[in-house]
Amino acid sequence: MSNLLKGVPASPGIAIAKAYRLEPDESVPQRKAVEDSAAEKQRLKEAVEAAKTDIDRIREQTLERLGPQKAEIFEAHLFLLDDPDLIDAAMDQIDSEGVNAEYALYEVASGIMEALRSMDNEMLRERAADVKDITGRVISKLEGREHSALSELSEETILVAKDLTPSDTAQLNLEFVRGFVTEIGSRTSHSAIMARSLELAAVVGIGNKTSEIRTGDTIILDATQGEVIVNPSNDQLEEYSLRKREYEEHKIRMRSYVERPSVTADGVQVELASNIGGIDDLEKVLANGADAIGLFRTEFLYMGRSAFPSEEEQFTVYKHVLEKMKGKRVVIRTLDIGGDKELSYLQLPKEMNPFLGLRAIRLCLDREELFRTQLRALLRASVHGKLAIMFPMIAVLSELREAKRILEEERVQLEQEGIAVSDTLEVGIMIEIPAAALAADILAKEVDFFSIGTNDLIQYTMAADRMNELVSYLYQPHHPSILRLVQLVIQAAERHGKWAGMCGEMAGDSAAIPLLLGLGLHEFSMSASSVLPARELVSRLSKHEWSGLAEQALGMSSQQEVLDFVNQQLRSEA
Amino acid sequence: MSNLLKGVPASPGIAIAKAYRLEPDESVPQRKAVEDSAAEKQRLKEAVEAAKTDIDRIREQTLERLGPQKAEIFEAHLFLLDDPDLIDAAMDQIDSEGVNAEYALYEVASGIMEALRSMDNEMLRERAADVKDITGRVISKLEGREHSALSELSEETILVAKDLTPSDTAQLNLEFVRGFVTEIGSRTSHSAIMARSLELAAVVGIGNKTSEIRTGDTIILDATQGEVIVNPSNDQLEEYSLRKREYEEHKIRMRSYVERPSVTADGVQVELASNIGGIDDLEKVLANGADAIGLFRTEFLYMGRSAFPSEEEQFTVYKHVLEKMKGKRVVIRTLDIGGDKELSYLQLPKEMNPFLGLRAIRLCLDREELFRTQLRALLRASVHGKLAIMFPMIAVLSELREAKRILEEERVQLEQEGIAVSDTLEVGIMIEIPAAALAADILAKEVDFFSIGTNDLIQYTMAADRMNELVSYLYQPHHPSILRLVQLVIQAAERHGKWAGMCGEMAGDSAAIPLLLGLGLHEFSMSASSVLPARELVSRLSKHEWSGLAEQALGMSSQQEVLDFVNQQLRSEA
Repeated sequence: MSNLLKGVPASPGIAIAKAYRLEPDESVPQRKAVEDSAAEKQRLKEAVEAAKTDIDRIREQTLERLGPQKAEIFEAHLFLLDDPDLIDAAMDQIDSEGVNAEYALYEVASGIMEALRSMDNEMLRERAADVKDITGRVISKLEGREHSALSELSEETILVAKDLTPSDTAQLNLEFVRGFVTEIGSRTSHSAIMARSLELAAVVGIGNKTSEIRTGDTIILDATQGEVIVNPSNDQLEEYSLRKREYEEHKIRMRSYVERPSVTADGVQVELASNIGGIDDLEKVLANGADAIGLFRTEFLYMGRSAFPSEEEQFTVYKHVLEKMKGKRVVIRTLDIGGDKELSYLQLPKEMNPFLGLRAIRLCLDREELFRTQLRALLRASVHGKLAIMFPMIAVLSELREAKRILEEERVQLEQEGIAVSDTLEVGIMIEIPAAALAADILAKEVDFFSIGTNDLIQYTMAADRMNELVSYLYQPHHPSILRLVQLVIQAAERHGKWAGMCGEMAGDSAAIPLLLGLGLHEFSMSASSVLPARELVSRLSKHEWSGLAEQALGMSSQQEVLDFVNQQLRSEA
Repeated sequence: MSNLLKGVPASPGIAIAKAYRLEPDESVPQRKAVEDSAAEKQRLKEAVEAAKTDIDRIREQTLERLGPQKAEIFEAHLFLLDDPDLIDAAMDQIDSEGVNAEYALYEVASGIMEALRSMDNEMLRERAADVKDITGRVISKLEGREHSALSELSEETILVAKDLTPSDTAQLNLEFVRGFVTEIGSRTSHSAIMARSLELAAVVGIGNKTSEIRTGDTIILDATQGEVIVNPSNDQLEEYSLRKREYEEHKIRMRSYVERPSVTADGVQVELASNIGGIDDLEKVLANGADAIGLFRTEFLYMGRSAFPSEEEQFTVYKHVLEKMKGKRVVIRTLDIGGDKELSYLQLPKEMNPFLGLRAIRLCLDREELFRTQLRALLRASVHGKLAIMFPMIAVLSELREAKRILEEERVQLEQEGIAVSDTLEVGIMIEIPAAALAADILAKEVDFFSIGTNDLIQYTMAADRMNELVSYLYQPHHPSILRLVQLVIQAAERHGKWAGMCGEMAGDSAAIPLLLGLGLHEFSMSASSVLPARELVSRLSKHEWSGLAEQALGMSSQQEVLDFVNQQLRSEA
């Protein structure tokens, strides 16, 4: 199968269509002498205005299709077109050197991009792509060309490109574009995130193998597997057409679960919630009918900027999420920075083992002002929906008490200022450190809920860095040691009348859900795209039956034995 | 109390005596022109020979007093005096520049030291001190001076120095020297280790405050507290004389436990063992009447050298230790390298969180040849005493099985070669990863014993790097979560008829021993100096009573509550 290329599955889906290569515009405008520099400057001015009109239109479309945060990039583009360092500098160059507008703008923009690319700050380096994007657009206007050929598309197409710019992605004509393949990029690159938002099949990072694809080639894009097949054989076409149909039928069947309750076959109600990283993820949460938000990771509010977000700024975001969720629970986790997540504007000491260092609640209790600002924003937002505040990385009771004391102080302070705070606000903790799981009965008395963070809990329980490939064989969510800790936590919560949830990747894993259900887990928080498959699965399971099966699994000797057992049970039930 | 200086207590003891400042020899030999360079070279040759005779004598003394490993440094010194880069180079310089021997040698040595100090490798940087030591000795011979003034001492003395060189320490006249104070150094520096071997009171790292002490000042050295008092008042002299007497009486009382069995007040026999890092520690183990060696850390065999130790070399060391212990059990841990311990000749990938990375058994299973060499040496040594082999950092059963499979292969291989292997050899594992403690019942079926490594177990259970001061508040050996894991391990061992020990620092902690005894721990392995106090303590405790008290402690909510409870119980019993 030499026509099979492998890449990173960035957004699921299967498409079969003609390829369209999007060639990057690497042409350099010719330098020409101009006599009438006033006329040349007028040309540039008009081109800039025309580009602004285009960008404003794209911004409007994006706002409508993808929401305010995705549209922000185009506001930044409009802003750049008013930057004196760019357009005014080009005007000056037309005057001083008597050159044509295209060349002057290109020269000025190249200098700016070079400066940006040499910066230490990744955010600034990324701005270089924006400068390139808008400069290209203005030069196209000057040369009387269309900036992007994407509007020419008139049949079902799979785009093939080095990478897609923000304006490329925003302008994709969903009537014809069925998916895309890029040379560079990862699951977290801009184009991958956009693809998932647009529910468009995408395989990224296939490397320079994109050169094997020509415009007009038929390609199969199986973004469920990360596969691209160029000029498929008839057998391949047949096979993948079938797969595509099955995938789409499955998707439709899943859709039917959007409005259904999350109930087991024996009538037990559970909560299938979703994890989010920002307001951009809300739409998908709502579209997939999640019962709640089980984890709002607030660190993204703090990242990719030059200073801490203000209380007001945070309040606006929390309020927005609470309102959008219309009374469904929203668990917001306080800042979990440190470890592998750094902030450029927060100077933290270098640590030998950052995963075992000053992170999350440890850092917040050390930098109290930072913590108080977030707590005030949360408390103020609490009246706009059903809020639950969650503290990450609690190891011992004294940390929980300290965090609650500070929260209480801020609540009293707000009330003295006459600002309302909800009296149904819940306060809970992540259980992601073995010590906390082992002392869950002690902690349960002083919280409203637990949420088990399996990603960290597994890494600490196994003493194996989850980012380190050399020890990745020890990342074993189904190992009896992990299941036993999970059981301890759930039992402790139950005994004290509190609820227990889980917000690690394990909560959305179809081979883990039956066991977790059997152990009595109440809330399962996962990525939005896993909610419907989980609801469908739960509807087929008997909690009573899995309670006995989970007990059996706890006595097994390895993860493999547990996995074989679960899969065999699921097959025999199907 | 302005005459009180604080430092690091490096070796316990209390001394009151006159200070003697050991001034470093920083003099630079004068450059003189010599006519007869042949005669000058002969002078140098004779001085080198005289220095060799001295060093050889010191080496002999050290061998006798401190054992072969401590004497090795002087073999290295003798070797350096045969190094052509040093003496031959100095000879050449006498010829080519017509200078005196003192100056030539000083010049050559300075160049070598500078080169060594600029090295990236700490071992090589430390060699600079050796070059300085021997060069000073040869120059003293050339100048007709005594190299060290230490032999002049004729009354009880406390030495005060910037640091002590290996030859300084080896030559200490124990008839007069009562202890020492140094400006630099830590608990693990060369002089601190020597002090403990010599059972000499020492406070190190008091900083430039040593300048406040003059030769002839009376000083009190309380190395149980890390205190140095210069020219004490009469009240202070009285107070510390009393403390000194109490300390010495306590020491004598402890001595009376050397020959006694390790038995509780209610007649239960336990095992009070010792941890060692090499054969140098053996003497102290024997002097303190340890019942066994509960942990022989073999990494020290691999460190501070340029290649792996051979099978033969390892065999010799293991055999020596087994023979010296005369049938008492010796638990030898297989290589625990990686994490914070690196080997210059073993290229390991840089890891973001080395404590959660490829270390100990993980590394050994990855570099099988390295592991097999050690196992063969161990198996061959097994017939020379009562050997127990222990695998570190086992997280899951598959790792244990793999390690045992390799051990078995080597055993079969040796038997085919006609080499005897003991059939009473025990095989066990460290329990230092939460997953292993939680699955102890699964692991217990396939081992002969467990040894709980609390240093690592606590750091992983709390998710707090034990070397990181920012999170040191989480290093809580008495936290109920830790005690619960310890209980799980002991119960699992008991249920399967295996023994459970502990070899972390906690095992020698007088506030932990009662609880551990109560939980049913069989073997306690600690530093040799803790064995006698532990035996005395155990003799006063009732296992039956502490079994109930430990059960109570497991239900408490914090380490502080547990500590208060234990201390109150101990006081009420006293």
